[in-house]
Amino acid sequence: MNASRKTIERLSHYRMVLSRLSGQGVQNIYSRELAALADCTPAQVRRDLMVTGYEGNPKHGYNISELKKSLDVFFDFKGNLVAVIVGAGSLGRALIAYFMPKKTMYDIVAAFDSDMNKTGRLINGTPCFHINEMVEKLHDLKPDIALVTVPAESAQEVALKLVKSGVSGILNFAPVRLKVPEKVYVENIDVTMSLEKVAFFSRQYREEKNNG
Amino acid sequence: MNASRKTIERLSHYRMVLSRLSGQGVQNIYSRELAALADCTPAQVRRDLMVTGYEGNPKHGYNISELKKSLDVFFDFKGNLVAVIVGAGSLGRALIAYFMPKKTMYDIVAAFDSDMNKTGRLINGTPCFHINEMVEKLHDLKPDIALVTVPAESAQEVALKLVKSGVSGILNFAPVRLKVPEKVYVENIDVTMSLEKVAFFSRQYREEKNNG
Repeated sequence: MNASRKTIERLSHYRMVLSRLSGQGVQNIYSRELAALADCTPAQVRRDLMVTGYEGNPKHGYNISELKKSLDVFFDFKGNLVAVIVGAGSLGRALIAYFMPKKTMYDIVAAFDSDMNKTGRLINGTPCFHINEMVEKLHDLKPDIALVTVPAESAQEVALKLVKSGVSGILNFAPVRLKVPEKVYVENIDVTMSLEKVAFFSRQYREEKNNG
Repeated sequence: MNASRKTIERLSHYRMVLSRLSGQGVQNIYSRELAALADCTPAQVRRDLMVTGYEGNPKHGYNISELKKSLDVFFDFKGNLVAVIVGAGSLGRALIAYFMPKKTMYDIVAAFDSDMNKTGRLINGTPCFHINEMVEKLHDLKPDIALVTVPAESAQEVALKLVKSGVSGILNFAPVRLKVPEKVYVENIDVTMSLEKVAFFSRQYREEKNNG
């Protein structure tokens, strides 16, 4: 089944909204309510959920726990997803801390860094190895995906090593466009660029306000 | 001058590419080279740079240091941009550590958290106050923008307080769509959603490879 990036984003968002509602004891939800919470249209919600194969009864609203289960199955692997992280600076360590407690889907099995002070020890339970050992360790660990938080200068080299070892998905935080073969999925998160956008548009909005 | 979000993203990206090249001692660059490095077309590069008012001589390539200076002026404020961060968990602390050393454009003047163990002390040089003091402190600090790394449940309430105090730009890491008045710019970074996309598409690509 082929789903677009936007559809997957929305499905992931619905899943988070449903988790939250379920935690609050809510049992049913209409597509228009879910749409309002996920900032899209009811028609989109219904179309997206069809992609997952979920057949609810939207007349009386979706049953939240059933719908969530269906999304869990849609997103989940048979087992956990094996991930590694390359770069154990402040961002890398924050990501390990962020994902470690939620061991439901991601299992960050190793971190790699070039700084000897960080290697040879555990970071929130994840062993950190020297980057020179990476190729060898990747061969053993066979990760599915990788998070990359190294500086821009080394990101491309790291990405190629990851791809060579069989990684087919990379979440890249380095401010550089990675060149990878087809059939490797790269998602970029560029915090500096995002902050620059916020700075630029907040200034523009403020000037517009001041001018009238 | 009105620039689209995509244009601002690309300009921010050019700026980073130029910084890197300049650090490597490169002096000139053609629009097609910059386009290749920034993953867009030469025509886009030329159009985007016109927005900033830069008038180079693209025949012999752009002068990197001049072009970078022009982009710095375009993005920069008269003074530094005053930012606060709400939520001083692992991600919040990583962001403070990430932006503190580069005091060129952003000045994270305060952090806020509800955890008493984090408040009343400095985090990488940034004072951390209790969230109950936020409204009062915002009144004094008058921040331009804010980074939000609180849990999804509290993000909306935090956002409204920020907006009320005059913040017109928010970089939101909480996995929830914030409802804010017009003329407040929100940029979302949703790490979990991004990782779910990577997981989903990397699996799809792998299955396609295995099936053919």
